Amino acid sequence: MLHWLRHYRRAMLPGDISAGVVVAMMMIPQGMAYAIVAGLPPVVGLYASILPPVLYALFGTSSTQSVGPMAIISLMTASSLAPLASQGSTLYTVLAAQLALLSGLVLLACGLLRIGFIANFFSRPVMSGFTIGSAVVIALGQVPTLLGAPWFTLHVPSAVLGLASLALLLLARRALAPVLRTAGLSPDAADIGSKLAPMVVVLGATALVPVLGLDALGVRTVGTVPAGLPGLNLAASHGHWQALVQPALLIGFMVFLISMSGAQALALKRAEKLQSNYELIGLGAANIGSALTGGFPVTGSMSRSAVNFAAGANSQLASLLAAALLALALLLPTGWLALLPLPALAATIIVAVIGMLDTSTLKTSWRYDRADAAALAATACGVLALGVEAGVVIGVALSMGALIWRASRPHIAVLGRIPGTEHFRNVERYSADTAPGLLLLRVDAGLFFGNVEAVNERIEDELAARPDTRHLVLVLSAVNAIDTSALFALGELNAMLAARGIKLHLAEVKGPVMDRLKHSDLLGALGGKLYLSTAMAWDDLAGT
Amino acid sequence: MLHWLRHYRRAMLPGDISAGVVVAMMMIPQGMAYAIVAGLPPVVGLYASILPPVLYALFGTSSTQSVGPMAIISLMTASSLAPLASQGSTLYTVLAAQLALLSGLVLLACGLLRIGFIANFFSRPVMSGFTIGSAVVIALGQVPTLLGAPWFTLHVPSAVLGLASLALLLLARRALAPVLRTAGLSPDAADIGSKLAPMVVVLGATALVPVLGLDALGVRTVGTVPAGLPGLNLAASHGHWQALVQPALLIGFMVFLISMSGAQALALKRAEKLQSNYELIGLGAANIGSALTGGFPVTGSMSRSAVNFAAGANSQLASLLAAALLALALLLPTGWLALLPLPALAATIIVAVIGMLDTSTLKTSWRYDRADAAALAATACGVLALGVEAGVVIGVALSMGALIWRASRPHIAVLGRIPGTEHFRNVERYSADTAPGLLLLRVDAGLFFGNVEAVNERIEDELAARPDTRHLVLVLSAVNAIDTSALFALGELNAMLAARGIKLHLAEVKGPVMDRLKHSDLLGALGGKLYLSTAMAWDDLAGT
Repeated sequence: MLHWLRHYRRAMLPGDISAGVVVAMMMIPQGMAYAIVAGLPPVVGLYASILPPVLYALFGTSSTQSVGPMAIISLMTASSLAPLASQGSTLYTVLAAQLALLSGLVLLACGLLRIGFIANFFSRPVMSGFTIGSAVVIALGQVPTLLGAPWFTLHVPSAVLGLASLALLLLARRALAPVLRTAGLSPDAADIGSKLAPMVVVLGATALVPVLGLDALGVRTVGTVPAGLPGLNLAASHGHWQALVQPALLIGFMVFLISMSGAQALALKRAEKLQSNYELIGLGAANIGSALTGGFPVTGSMSRSAVNFAAGANSQLASLLAAALLALALLLPTGWLALLPLPALAATIIVAVIGMLDTSTLKTSWRYDRADAAALAATACGVLALGVEAGVVIGVALSMGALIWRASRPHIAVLGRIPGTEHFRNVERYSADTAPGLLLLRVDAGLFFGNVEAVNERIEDELAARPDTRHLVLVLSAVNAIDTSALFALGELNAMLAARGIKLHLAEVKGPVMDRLKHSDLLGALGGKLYLSTAMAWDDLAGT
Repeated sequence: MLHWLRHYRRAMLPGDISAGVVVAMMMIPQGMAYAIVAGLPPVVGLYASILPPVLYALFGTSSTQSVGPMAIISLMTASSLAPLASQGSTLYTVLAAQLALLSGLVLLACGLLRIGFIANFFSRPVMSGFTIGSAVVIALGQVPTLLGAPWFTLHVPSAVLGLASLALLLLARRALAPVLRTAGLSPDAADIGSKLAPMVVVLGATALVPVLGLDALGVRTVGTVPAGLPGLNLAASHGHWQALVQPALLIGFMVFLISMSGAQALALKRAEKLQSNYELIGLGAANIGSALTGGFPVTGSMSRSAVNFAAGANSQLASLLAAALLALALLLPTGWLALLPLPALAATIIVAVIGMLDTSTLKTSWRYDRADAAALAATACGVLALGVEAGVVIGVALSMGALIWRASRPHIAVLGRIPGTEHFRNVERYSADTAPGLLLLRVDAGLFFGNVEAVNERIEDELAARPDTRHLVLVLSAVNAIDTSALFALGELNAMLAARGIKLHLAEVKGPVMDRLKHSDLLGALGGKLYLSTAMAWDDLAGT
């Protein structure tokens, strides 16, 4: 907790201050935009950007992670709440906070249970497919707002404003950094400057509203900003708890995955070590904090964290400063926010999610591993066709399927003796001697429920090819663990072999494995013997 | 297909005939009992015992598997249909057949997609916990029928009949086989004889109904058996398809798991090889067949298959014969079935599921691996507290959690040179030389999304402990595959190390891994070199 504060050095301050200012300016349009994606009033996005980073700074372990609203989590929020309340209703806002609370509790519980290893549940192609699918869903969802009218129609003043904002933002994304560099800024400063384009566009578009009387022309604006924080209202959501549990599990899971994938990339650059269980607790606290201030689910935002990093953030002080600046901005007169035109905000959302349409993973996996490319495509299509929750489930299923498939094909070698030595090697790769009646098998993986069937099948195949076998020696030099399922399987294998007149022996059992086997009946029931080395088994059994 | 028929030998016939007769006699009470567990009229259980084993015999690969109604699958059927229709309604019966159809299609699709490896998704303790939880739920569900009245009350004539049947069956389970052996039967024959006790008790109880006028006393009986097969009525279930998809996925999954776990145990005894993809197709066809004859989801029953095996079944001819005998029995006058008293049938159900309460897995895992014991208990409690579907989900989650946890902790060794040799070994286990500035790491697992973080963390730890490192050599002698996620991670590691002035080298890359890496940008971007052997890397880099 606050590890970074105890090691704070004065030299870190300038970087933290500049990063804090930049991130705050990035957060204002982004917070509002992602609140809209979540189906909430834009100002809720600002509320959700203050307390969460403060709480994350207390418990989290990344120095540069910027916690707050994030596009995909907002989409999941909207999708989870859609069946329960209509957007714009008080119930909807209350349920969004409730969802943040439950997601936070899920994360906190996972952290206290120390199951941070679940960050490994998604493969990178699956995560990429999930992100691409979500980005497309979000962008398509903003088109009506951008054009000021339902699909296949348009409201001309809104469309002009929206498309002009979009064009400006796309231009800034492409050309602003080079222009700034030509103007004499350092490459880093130019990059950061280009990231502030959304703030500039939003301010400019807002200024145009009273100047051109756009609201009178029918361009929709943010409208009156409710005074004060809505707060957490547990009573109002009575009866909805149960319906929120499953969404909270999925959202908590994705909050963690998204935050970790961003933070790990940055941690690698700084040789910094993240602790996933503390990350879970930090993100859990951040979401509970969001709930307490009437917000909605939040996570570490990759794009914002990268800007924070590039702008020189050395510690979580940068995020604390950004939060303080945002709180200050909300204390100033916020009347101008009411005039902010929604088409311009829609344009910032679309440009933000275009940045998530990374095709390099698709290209690489297409060239490198078609199965991974197929998993990426299936996850993206799943999100598009069945929704973002189904996308998470499909992603987990594909990743786990890949994992169990891999685990269910352990490498198994028939060993033979290298003539004149005490060394034993794979007979397929070395010219090694075998002895009649003796089969030496080395399994190059821990034995567990996922591969015992494969081991059994291989043993059957080898025995079928060597019907004279009377001794089977399992060489366990690469077996670091044997789980309960594999223990039973070994017991059954031993009994089955005994019934067929074949003795099962074990060789090179590792210390920790042996300690555990002593708590079982296997060693007592074993038809054959235990050998310290394969050579001892060979000397004892070959030619008998 | 029909592989066994082409290799049929005349000597197999006597065993198949005796097993067929025994299994048919076991199937009559069992089929009716499990139809009751599924919430269906008992006769539906008989229908579901005829076509499914015939279709399984066409496609399946186990010689002794007996396919038909099974307790746990029946419980899952009842639980899936409960929210959709009330027991006893026509809709309920139609939806049960629909569920069998969908489950069959799921199984067939999995078979055609060749994803039989999903049989490895449950660990043995999790399966045991699931079975125990389900058995308790089924037994508790039968208590009101056994006592002829709702919970905490009883209907004396029903309770007397039910408890007497229960006592007789429990006695038969315990003592009948020894008695038969004393009477001169062989141990196998005595065992099989004791398995026919349910048939005898059911027939005896049925005979008592008219003799004692039990129905007039209020003992509930099976009642009129509908004439003919109900058949598949797709129109009647219009609008329920969607609600049945998720249950069908879960039921299809468990049908496969339950059938495979039983069949594998028997296959092991016969040195017979099952092919999981054909098993999927066989079970899929069996369930579609069940649907076509108005049945409900079916699977391979462990208890019935074991009797089939013990009674001498040599091939699927035994199951075909049992099915034919059952069909014949339904052609005979079935009026007597109407008199079958439900309390006696409830007693057979309770005794059957008591046989599933195997505590040996719990005892063994408690002594051997507390985490496995906890997974068993959690799954059993999940079934009891949250229902059988939640139990499947909890079981998968716990098994997959265990798998990813295991996968996320690969064995990684820092290597050193055994003085005076070209051999490199783990410096923690051998006294081996290291060279300043050179770090040799061997990862003893394929690199993939589940362990790249662990590898990164270990590298950071080792680099932190050796700040003078300028060359990091990853020794990939045990790496059989590198997936797309790990490919990206290696690329990022290479860039990160380069930024810190450290070169990344690869040594002992296996042929198939190298072939694949050639389709990526990694080799071109690599800061260091590729070495055929660790010794060559040492000679090149040590002391530079």
